[in-house]
Amino acid sequence: MPPISRDYNTHCRCLQVESRIIPPDNLRSIKLIPEGPHCTETEVIAGLASGEKVCLNPRSSWVKKLIHFVLEKQLNQQGALPKNQA
Amino acid sequence: MPPISRDYNTHCRCLQVESRIIPPDNLRSIKLIPEGPHCTETEVIAGLASGEKVCLNPRSSWVKKLIHFVLEKQLNQQGALPKNQA
Repeated sequence: MPPISRDYNTHCRCLQVESRIIPPDNLRSIKLIPEGPHCTETEVIAGLASGEKVCLNPRSSWVKKLIHFVLEKQLNQQGALPKNQA
Repeated sequence: MPPISRDYNTHCRCLQVESRIIPPDNLRSIKLIPEGPHCTETEVIAGLASGEKVCLNPRSSWVKKLIHFVLEKQLNQQGALPKNQA
């Protein structure tokens, strides 16, 4: 049996997934936990501004759009930067 | 001054970003923290199998590919499932 360390996930964390769409402004963080020996499901856990944690469905299109939005939002705001600002 | 709660980010967490590519197998989690009043940068923090946390550059293409891979990996394995298994 491998030693149980703080970070070694031993089981799935999400019992159910949130179906309501979460507005990006309510979002503090999104954590992706790839499926693995500990859990056969990829899990997506959102941390809300309220401090609440909710599980999202990795297969639903709005979750992917939300993740894409978070990553791309950064770039759009700095569109005006000179190109060499890689 | 807003109350400092455990979850309320008050500053950027990443001082520098990892440039080396992290193999998906070493990955335990990926945390996205959207930019906001606390930090003008979107931050991507990977939790490794070793327990280490490393900051990744949200603008680099391999980070986006890694996130995309984690999300899509789930679907590819269940391609054989009947369509109504939405």
